[in-house]
Amino acid sequence: MSALPPPGSTERTAVRRIPDKEVRDREVLNAVLDAGLVAHVAVTDDDGQPFVVPVGYARDGDRVLVHGSTASRLFRRLAGGQPTCLTVTLLDGLVLARSTFESSMNYRAVMVLGTCTSLAGPDKDRALEVITEHLLPGRWADARHPSRKESAATTVLALPLDEASVKVSAGPPEDDPDDVDRPVWAGVVPIVETFGQPEDAPDLVDTFPVPDYVARWRR
Amino acid sequence: MSALPPPGSTERTAVRRIPDKEVRDREVLNAVLDAGLVAHVAVTDDDGQPFVVPVGYARDGDRVLVHGSTASRLFRRLAGGQPTCLTVTLLDGLVLARSTFESSMNYRAVMVLGTCTSLAGPDKDRALEVITEHLLPGRWADARHPSRKESAATTVLALPLDEASVKVSAGPPEDDPDDVDRPVWAGVVPIVETFGQPEDAPDLVDTFPVPDYVARWRR
Repeated sequence: MSALPPPGSTERTAVRRIPDKEVRDREVLNAVLDAGLVAHVAVTDDDGQPFVVPVGYARDGDRVLVHGSTASRLFRRLAGGQPTCLTVTLLDGLVLARSTFESSMNYRAVMVLGTCTSLAGPDKDRALEVITEHLLPGRWADARHPSRKESAATTVLALPLDEASVKVSAGPPEDDPDDVDRPVWAGVVPIVETFGQPEDAPDLVDTFPVPDYVARWRR
Repeated sequence: MSALPPPGSTERTAVRRIPDKEVRDREVLNAVLDAGLVAHVAVTDDDGQPFVVPVGYARDGDRVLVHGSTASRLFRRLAGGQPTCLTVTLLDGLVLARSTFESSMNYRAVMVLGTCTSLAGPDKDRALEVITEHLLPGRWADARHPSRKESAATTVLALPLDEASVKVSAGPPEDDPDDVDRPVWAGVVPIVETFGQPEDAPDLVDTFPVPDYVARWRR
């Protein structure tokens, strides 16, 4: 276990509405971050207008890494130290109660609050490998690594997991006792994300089989 | 086609970084919203700290509907007229270029900026039906509808689609010409979201088959 404070331990990230959905467990938080591919990251402009943008990410120990173009407004604002929120949501199922009011979704969601630090030098180089290996495990050994110019065009940011919370909603519907007798089906319809059959790039110059590391990917 | 201005037509939502990913087509924007289940919505607190929260939603013509507890901080802030951003992202695949720099993801994403209006009366009642029928098509005719008390405990908000953009990234990797000869596989690994086998609630009081409308759901 990490030496960091448990997630949800601050006033801002404590789950006020439905405390029993909060899971004060660093390993659960890490597992959700490790299972996701896309995070939704917010920045706010000078007029107080927030923007929510999807980004690829990776967990690296006690921080989350994101990368993007140095030309991106989002990454410029994040690199400038603006407070942000990074949320990763894994949707696990639709929960059909007998009433629409108690119907809901099963999900796992991590919310991280904080300020990003822009990485440079060897830390930046290694972060690019960590991101690639999270999103495309095995690919770093096979693909061409960033050139000096490409790296210079890329902003890599680290957001510490100091202030983070995880919520897990799982299991069957919880109907009002008065509704259980209703003659209607109730239950959960799971949602599963899977990889489809890999599609060759049309400009492959030779017959390359799909690499083993790709064929092994499972969601 | 809608009589609204095309998405992305304002300075704030124009996609500056990669304009060719922007699709100025209202039907594409609607199709993305109609295909998604979860949106990520932002509010900012008084200190400028943004929060990004996943919510179920539905498109209702030229607006997006969301609903939540009247006790929720998020919904209280949104109902109070704070500027928000609602983003829906559908992840379609991992794009493996020969270089890590050109590797990316295929996705469809809609971003809506604006201010929510809290619904009441018949508009609110109908909005709850629209949300249920988007998330759980066919369920409204089968499940118990909200009681007066349940409706009073629910905030239903509408966010107009006046200021919205859609980005679509699709197709094979676009490698640097110098990289195409590299002896490495390149292509796309599709990501597919599917429904699993429905799971009966453990407290079903009788044998109910899974309803036809649920069995027909496809992602």
